[in-house]
Amino acid sequence: MRSLINGKADLILSSQDRGLQYGDGLFETLVAENGEVKNWSLHLARLSEGCERLFLPQPNELQLLTEIDHLLSDTGKEIVKIIISRGLGPRGYAFKEVVPTRVINVYPWPELPDKNEKTGIELFICQTRIARQPALAGIKHLNRLENVLARHEWQDQKYAEGLMLDTENNVIEGTMSNLFIVKNNKLQTPDLTQCGVNGVTRQRILNIASEKEITLEVIDLSMKQLEQADEVFVCNSVIGLWPVRKIKEKRFLIAPVYSRATETSANPITRFLQKSLLA
Amino acid sequence: MRSLINGKADLILSSQDRGLQYGDGLFETLVAENGEVKNWSLHLARLSEGCERLFLPQPNELQLLTEIDHLLSDTGKEIVKIIISRGLGPRGYAFKEVVPTRVINVYPWPELPDKNEKTGIELFICQTRIARQPALAGIKHLNRLENVLARHEWQDQKYAEGLMLDTENNVIEGTMSNLFIVKNNKLQTPDLTQCGVNGVTRQRILNIASEKEITLEVIDLSMKQLEQADEVFVCNSVIGLWPVRKIKEKRFLIAPVYSRATETSANPITRFLQKSLLA
Repeated sequence: MRSLINGKADLILSSQDRGLQYGDGLFETLVAENGEVKNWSLHLARLSEGCERLFLPQPNELQLLTEIDHLLSDTGKEIVKIIISRGLGPRGYAFKEVVPTRVINVYPWPELPDKNEKTGIELFICQTRIARQPALAGIKHLNRLENVLARHEWQDQKYAEGLMLDTENNVIEGTMSNLFIVKNNKLQTPDLTQCGVNGVTRQRILNIASEKEITLEVIDLSMKQLEQADEVFVCNSVIGLWPVRKIKEKRFLIAPVYSRATETSANPITRFLQKSLLA
Repeated sequence: MRSLINGKADLILSSQDRGLQYGDGLFETLVAENGEVKNWSLHLARLSEGCERLFLPQPNELQLLTEIDHLLSDTGKEIVKIIISRGLGPRGYAFKEVVPTRVINVYPWPELPDKNEKTGIELFICQTRIARQPALAGIKHLNRLENVLARHEWQDQKYAEGLMLDTENNVIEGTMSNLFIVKNNKLQTPDLTQCGVNGVTRQRILNIASEKEITLEVIDLSMKQLEQADEVFVCNSVIGLWPVRKIKEKRFLIAPVYSRATETSANPITRFLQKSLLA
C-alpha cells in the first residue's frame, strides 16, 4: 500500500484527527488502470456533494489528481482510496476553522473470484439494519459501523455479499454494493433518500439505462419483490456487476455472459449492463 | 494534551486504523480529580458493553487504569478520553483477528461558565435528527456525524447545548448530554433503546432516584411534554448537571442552588440531584 497524507509520503496521522474521534469525514474508493483513475468525475461529484452536506471545504481536484497520479503505477489495476476528514480540532463536536486531512492510499488489486461475475453470487441476508437518516443518506461518510456489523454476520465464503434492509424492512443495498432488480424488463433500484450509499456504479447504470431507453424505476423495494424479481444484481466500482443467483431458497437463472446472450436469455438486461459498464 | 497510544507516549497512529476508516470503535470521556478518575466502574461497564456489542475484545481494566494513572496530574481536575478502535485491518468491512488500538488522552479542564450550573441554560433546538438504530443505541461509539452536524447548527453562545430529537420526533438527548424532566415530582428521561447515548451521569441519576425513592420513568418524550415540564435539566460527566431555564419561548423557573432550596422551590428535584452528584 502506498500513501500520501496531506501531500506527504506518510502512513500516520494525529489521534486528534476528527476522522478518528467522530468519523467526521468522507471517503471514495476508485479503480485505476494503467495509471488512470476511472469514472473520476462521478467520484469527485459525490465527494463534492458530501463536502457540501458535511460543511467541509470543497475538494481541490487538481491537488487530488496530482497526488493520486504520484502514487499510481503505470500498468495494471489498482485501488485508490481517498479519505477527507475535518482534520484536527479541539475536544468536542463543535468546529470552526477547518483544515481537512487528506489521505490518499493506493492498494494492490484484490483477487476477486471470476465466477462471481460469470455465474453469479449467493446473497447473505444481514440482520443488522441500516438506520434511516436523510442527513447522511447517499454520501460516502466515515460512519460505517452498520456495514462493519452487517459484514461480520457471515464468515461462510459461499456468500460473496450481504443484503441490508433498513429499519423499516425496505431492501436498500449490499454491505459494500448497490442492488438492482429486473422485473418485466424494467430495471428497479431502491430509493436512497433515507439511507444507503449512492454508488458511482449505480449512477453509471442509471445513466446507461437512460441512454439505452431501458425503463428505470427508483422504488421502495420489499423482500417479497426482491424474491419475485426476474434478475437481481449488485454493483460497485471495484467488483463491477455481479449477477445474483441465489437469495435464501430462491434461485435466479443466470444467462451466459453477454457475448453469448440472446433476447431469450433469462437475464439479458443484467448481461447487457455488465458489458456496458466495461465499455 | 498528554497521550499514550497502545501504552507508548505517542500522538500519531496509522491511517489504516479502522477507527479512522470506518469509525469502528468506542470512546469514553471521564473526569479525573487529584489523580483519580471518577465513576470508573460505570465508564468501564459501558465500554465493556460497547466492546461486546461491537465484537471487540473486552477492555483490560488494569492496563487502562495504569495508563490513565501514568498521564494524570496529582492535583486539579482533568479530562480523560479513552478511544478503543478495532485497530489495523485490511481494506474492507470484514474483520477477523482483532488487535485493538488504545488511545488514552488527558486534556486540561475546560472553562465551563459557572452560571450554567447556577442559573441554568437555554437549549437550542437542533434540526438534525438522530437515526433510530437499536444495534448502536446506548453505547458510545465513534460514529458521531449526527452530533457534529447538530452541534454545527448554532454558533450563538447564548445556547449552551442543543436538543436532539430522533427521526420520529421523540426528544432523545442533548448533542453532548442526556436530558431529564421533572413533572408532578416524577423524574422522567427518554428511552434510549432506539438511539442515544446511555450516559454515565444519566445512570448515576437513575441510581440516586432509586436510592432516594424518587419516582423515575423512562418514557417516549414529546416536545409538548418537554415544554410542559416543571423542571428540565441536562447532564454529562464533564458538565455535571445544568438546569434548563429556556426552551424556545418557554421559560422554566430555576431554584437557587440547593443549599438554599426549600420544598417550595420551583425545582427541588433538579437541585437535589445536582447536590447528590457532587457527593
